[in-house]
Amino acid sequence: MQYPEPIAKLIEGFMRLPGIGPKTASRLAFFVLEMKEDDVLDFAKALVNVKRKLTYCSVCHNITDTDPCRICEDSKRDESVICVVQDAKDVIAMEKMKEYHGKYHVLHGAISPMDGIGPEDIKIPELIKRLQDDTIQEVIVATNPTIEGEATAMYISRLVKPTGIKVTRIAHGLPVGGDLEYADEVTLSKAMEGRREL
Amino acid sequence: MQYPEPIAKLIEGFMRLPGIGPKTASRLAFFVLEMKEDDVLDFAKALVNVKRKLTYCSVCHNITDTDPCRICEDSKRDESVICVVQDAKDVIAMEKMKEYHGKYHVLHGAISPMDGIGPEDIKIPELIKRLQDDTIQEVIVATNPTIEGEATAMYISRLVKPTGIKVTRIAHGLPVGGDLEYADEVTLSKAMEGRREL
Repeated sequence: MQYPEPIAKLIEGFMRLPGIGPKTASRLAFFVLEMKEDDVLDFAKALVNVKRKLTYCSVCHNITDTDPCRICEDSKRDESVICVVQDAKDVIAMEKMKEYHGKYHVLHGAISPMDGIGPEDIKIPELIKRLQDDTIQEVIVATNPTIEGEATAMYISRLVKPTGIKVTRIAHGLPVGGDLEYADEVTLSKAMEGRREL
Repeated sequence: MQYPEPIAKLIEGFMRLPGIGPKTASRLAFFVLEMKEDDVLDFAKALVNVKRKLTYCSVCHNITDTDPCRICEDSKRDESVICVVQDAKDVIAMEKMKEYHGKYHVLHGAISPMDGIGPEDIKIPELIKRLQDDTIQEVIVATNPTIEGEATAMYISRLVKPTGIKVTRIAHGLPVGGDLEYADEVTLSKAMEGRREL
């Protein structure tokens, strides 16, 4: 005897999610079985709504339920600065900081020749198009400090510099609260390189 | 700016599940965003179906999509033996072994005075009722080897023995593949106590 079909299907569903194996999936499925029906219905509705109601903003390509998204529509934000990030989640991280008041551009990935991802496969052409607007004065490249992120940053910088728009890269160095003793060489070298006068 | 509402709702939904905190929930929600719509719909349907289509078998109280459940209805199974387990998941574990061909009784918990769970709060009265059937000759108590499981086993044994039905308890000892060196004292003492002649 295997699991009754409805629960087998749910286990299968959970197993499609990242980091959830058969044991966790079965634990979650049995938990759902004990949940209040209303909560389960809400959860199911939330799943469907994420697919149905969310789209990508046609301007910055961030996820949104309105188009253009709330950040792009917000006239109080500085239109002269665009922060380029790899992922929609990065926008959330930046917004949590509460100190950046410019606009965003979400690339949905980074250039990675190893995986066959070129500049045309991510939202770089769309970024270049946006830069034709005269109001933009600075592009802050906040891609991840990985090989792919750095390659993407270099590519964008080479493309944008000739247009006269300032291109900056977020700083690399020791994370706040970190310990010099445990920092890796590359981070340390970046921290030295980026040192500033006090 | 916080998450757009649909994704915030989904994160909330995931966070209701056990062992899933805000970070994992947000990772899962963003993963769902990238999933194929059909897969998401299937998953949502599976969630709802688990609540709608599954019930508890009126005989053995195992989860089932038919009533009585397939095990209770299976005439090829030995009706004279009932294996008492705490949880529906335990039935699956027993069935995976493929060596038990009797029936089951799912208690949905164990006696735990600390948590205010008495014999009436789990399916013990229903078990006693089933035992009035003359065909039953043995009750195998397979509750967990924990304080609550043992208490439940003792309680059932005291209740059933006077009726003349044989009551047995599954063996406690070293798990196969285990190491004597790392066994705890209680398990070791149970293993010694339960030793058999070769």
